[in-house]
Amino acid sequence: MDIKITVREVAGIIKGEVDGDPEAVLNGFSKIEGATAGTITFLSNPAYEQFLYSTGATAVIVAKDFKPSSKVATTLIRVENPYASVAVLLEKFSPRQHPQPGVHAMSVISETAVCGKDLSAGAFTYVGKNTKIGNNVVLYPQVFIGDNCEIGNDTVLYPGVKVMASCKVGSFCTIHSGCVIGSDGFGFAPTDTANYRKVPQTGNVIIEDYVEIGANTTIDRATLGSTTIRRGVKLDNLIQIAHNVEIGANTVIAAQSGVSGSTKVGENCMIGGQVGIVGHITIADGVKIAAQSGIASSIEEKESIIQGSPAFDIGKYRRSYAAFKNLSDLLSRVNELEKKVNSDVKTEKKK
Amino acid sequence: MDIKITVREVAGIIKGEVDGDPEAVLNGFSKIEGATAGTITFLSNPAYEQFLYSTGATAVIVAKDFKPSSKVATTLIRVENPYASVAVLLEKFSPRQHPQPGVHAMSVISETAVCGKDLSAGAFTYVGKNTKIGNNVVLYPQVFIGDNCEIGNDTVLYPGVKVMASCKVGSFCTIHSGCVIGSDGFGFAPTDTANYRKVPQTGNVIIEDYVEIGANTTIDRATLGSTTIRRGVKLDNLIQIAHNVEIGANTVIAAQSGVSGSTKVGENCMIGGQVGIVGHITIADGVKIAAQSGIASSIEEKESIIQGSPAFDIGKYRRSYAAFKNLSDLLSRVNELEKKVNSDVKTEKKK
Amino acid sequence: MDIKITVREVAGIIKGEVDGDPEAVLNGFSKIEGATAGTITFLSNPAYEQFLYSTGATAVIVAKDFKPSSKVATTLIRVENPYASVAVLLEKFSPRQHPQPGVHAMSVISETAVCGKDLSAGAFTYVGKNTKIGNNVVLYPQVFIGDNCEIGNDTVLYPGVKVMASCKVGSFCTIHSGCVIGSDGFGFAPTDTANYRKVPQTGNVIIEDYVEIGANTTIDRATLGSTTIRRGVKLDNLIQIAHNVEIGANTVIAAQSGVSGSTKVGENCMIGGQVGIVGHITIADGVKIAAQSGIASSIEEKESIIQGSPAFDIGKYRRSYAAFKNLSDLLSRVNELEKKVNSDVKTEKKK
Repeated sequence: MDIKITVREVAGIIKGEVDGDPEAVLNGFSKIEGATAGTITFLSNPAYEQFLYSTGATAVIVAKDFKPSSKVATTLIRVENPYASVAVLLEKFSPRQHPQPGVHAMSVISETAVCGKDLSAGAFTYVGKNTKIGNNVVLYPQVFIGDNCEIGNDTVLYPGVKVMASCKVGSFCTIHSGCVIGSDGFGFAPTDTANYRKVPQTGNVIIEDYVEIGANTTIDRATLGSTTIRRGVKLDNLIQIAHNVEIGANTVIAAQSGVSGSTKVGENCMIGGQVGIVGHITIADGVKIAAQSGIASSIEEKESIIQGSPAFDIGKYRRSYAAFKNLSDLLSRVNELEKKVNSDVKTEKKK
Repeated sequence: MDIKITVREVAGIIKGEVDGDPEAVLNGFSKIEGATAGTITFLSNPAYEQFLYSTGATAVIVAKDFKPSSKVATTLIRVENPYASVAVLLEKFSPRQHPQPGVHAMSVISETAVCGKDLSAGAFTYVGKNTKIGNNVVLYPQVFIGDNCEIGNDTVLYPGVKVMASCKVGSFCTIHSGCVIGSDGFGFAPTDTANYRKVPQTGNVIIEDYVEIGANTTIDRATLGSTTIRRGVKLDNLIQIAHNVEIGANTVIAAQSGVSGSTKVGENCMIGGQVGIVGHITIADGVKIAAQSGIASSIEEKESIIQGSPAFDIGKYRRSYAAFKNLSDLLSRVNELEKKVNSDVKTEKKK
Repeated sequence: MDIKITVREVAGIIKGEVDGDPEAVLNGFSKIEGATAGTITFLSNPAYEQFLYSTGATAVIVAKDFKPSSKVATTLIRVENPYASVAVLLEKFSPRQHPQPGVHAMSVISETAVCGKDLSAGAFTYVGKNTKIGNNVVLYPQVFIGDNCEIGNDTVLYPGVKVMASCKVGSFCTIHSGCVIGSDGFGFAPTDTANYRKVPQTGNVIIEDYVEIGANTTIDRATLGSTTIRRGVKLDNLIQIAHNVEIGANTVIAAQSGVSGSTKVGENCMIGGQVGIVGHITIADGVKIAAQSGIASSIEEKESIIQGSPAFDIGKYRRSYAAFKNLSDLLSRVNELEKKVNSDVKTEKKK
């Protein structure tokens, strides 16, 4: 945001109410801790409220119903959803500058590939045979797209993304660097001689529209049929999606989680980081899974919130874990009880 | 499988017995759920038996001794090992189409590299000095092979694979996209001044024949000597193999697991996903480790099956975990017992 | 070490005392197990002491105060810090051979990039607009550096490293293959319609001097401001560092760990493999975290050593876990106690 704009104008864009000086001039964004005069910042996570009372920012976007617990020197802009408002402003004033349309001389686009208008294809990028690419697609340098693929309109593939043969990526998708789409699923049939025969992975990966996939994440192609990432899914970095998995629409998965083969994850789920999910199960819609949990069987109840490895109800897990923290004490207490009770019993018997 | 073939012919290929119509014509593979007429599918995992009774498939490959629990409308082909039979058929009718032999004009093959016959080297692929490449090797686009490497016959390196200097890859290996072979081991010696001195990693990685390695997996070179992946090993995606590790023949490791430095894993082990194994230990042959387990000391008993972090016998782990799920109840019961026993004791004393 | 050197000369280099034959001639390094005559090895980890008594090595570097528990046939060189001495020797006799300076004809260096002296830029490497590169920098083949980046002196980027736009890498850094610096942070604001609006990630990543980063590790750019990796940090392979994280100087993190958004990790911490740390917390200086732990809240006590998910004091964790291993026994004992106590109580009541 390298411009001059008043608090009033910003409030207009994000439909906010100004609580302070509407004529104050803003020239950039900042983080609430350590912000300087002339900047605008936001308060969304309550853990940061402490910084509101000392921030140097000229304006702070807060929730409509936010009640300061102390005196605030800065101007507040009150909105429904502060985080979404920041997204709106950053999108408007700090949009990502992608490479301009044009095909670099040191790229390879197969003659049988069909490309839409305004393609940007960077240096050392490769597009295979019979592949179809939509309009306004950005292929950064060093991208690989195999034969018979499809890439939808307005999709961006960052450097080093690999989309293997026959895979499909929808429109308005963003795939970050080093991501691999369509590597072989991990399928090996044991043989009589203690080694394995590879099961050819003949399917593909289908990624629907508005999906974002993080850096170095891997999504394996199906053995038969498709591994499917539904519309609006957001996958973080270093995630593993195995063959024949389906991730339901608008589900969000944090970094380093893995979903094993043929599992079907519902819509609108929220899955924490480093979660592992076994194969061949179903996760209901709206399920929330705490970080580092392991899911060993189907979760049938929608909206359940679970933790543990294997995971169960999060409240129950936390009570169990609280008791676990003092488990050696509990053991001592039971030892003590046994001594008492057995001596009582002996006393009884003697009597 | 874009051909027409009868059930009888398929049964001949996989040495199966036909239970139904041997003259039915097949034109493709399908998954058992949602299969359509004219296709062949298979039943290997019992969890999918439910779909057998309603599948639209014309034929289903099942185990020799499989007994349907309900009426089956489709033709069955009974074999020793259904999953291996599927591998045989897919290999025959849906083989992977790799790029044709030929060296792309926009690749770099060092003059001192020695390449076998029928090399396929894709665009933007780099092969270093004095590197030896066998016959029928496929290097997809954007592969990197450093100086003084060796790549065996019939090996396939997918796009973006990096084989660093002096590493050796055997014959009939498959290495998936983004995999890094021969990055430096993580070796730093603490110094007096609270920082670290890098220990040069002067060894290499040796990958024997018939190894398959998943996308974005990393295998570090040894400090001295070799990190070794024995014949027939299968590694899934996003696995970390540290310096000086040895993975025994035909061992299979699922995604996102990590093996720390100098650890020796036995032959024919099966290691689940997201498992962590500490350094400088030994895992016996045939050990099975449940997903998300942590191995903190050597496993000396062959064929043991373990779980937990740190891991112990899986049966015992499961009993402990079952009790853990109700641990806050157990705590309440002990609280209650203490009250009773102490009041009893008081009563005793009073008496 | 392809040279001839005496034990006396080696001892001079590493300031060691010779305990044996100073005139013995050495021609290479070896591992202590299976070493051959003429080589030098070291003993640093006590687990390997058993090999000292049968090693074929001509000389072994040991700690100053090491006392053999049995007869030693080889010559010992006694030093303060054996592992650091090995680093010194390997650095001197087996230095990494990087590519020579020179810009490959099939690389792309933007005209507005400013490069220092003796740059090595390999084939298929891309350097963006207005990027500044220091002296003696080595860019292996297939590196990507975006627009407006800075790379310090004497830094090495291995094949396939991607440094996205506006990120800064210090001097004397080593970044291994496939590492992604500056991918977008994982920021999405929920909207009213059950999907997400991307929060633009407008910040960058700053990596200070003397940092080493492992293969396929990912470091996301900040939403606003910078994700910061301080001087001397060592990150292993496949690590995830989220947006706006700060990792303190000389902190070491093992493979496959992840740090969530806006968390600040202190200096001189040691973090094991597969650790997960939630967002928006602070870890004090010198904290040690055991492998596979999960950190759910700030760690305020310096030098604390913790384990578990969520983690707490490591000694307490281990006592709890020891009790957990016998938890089903404990349950049975409590069942038994209840029977006894309740029958006692009944007996009491009857009396």
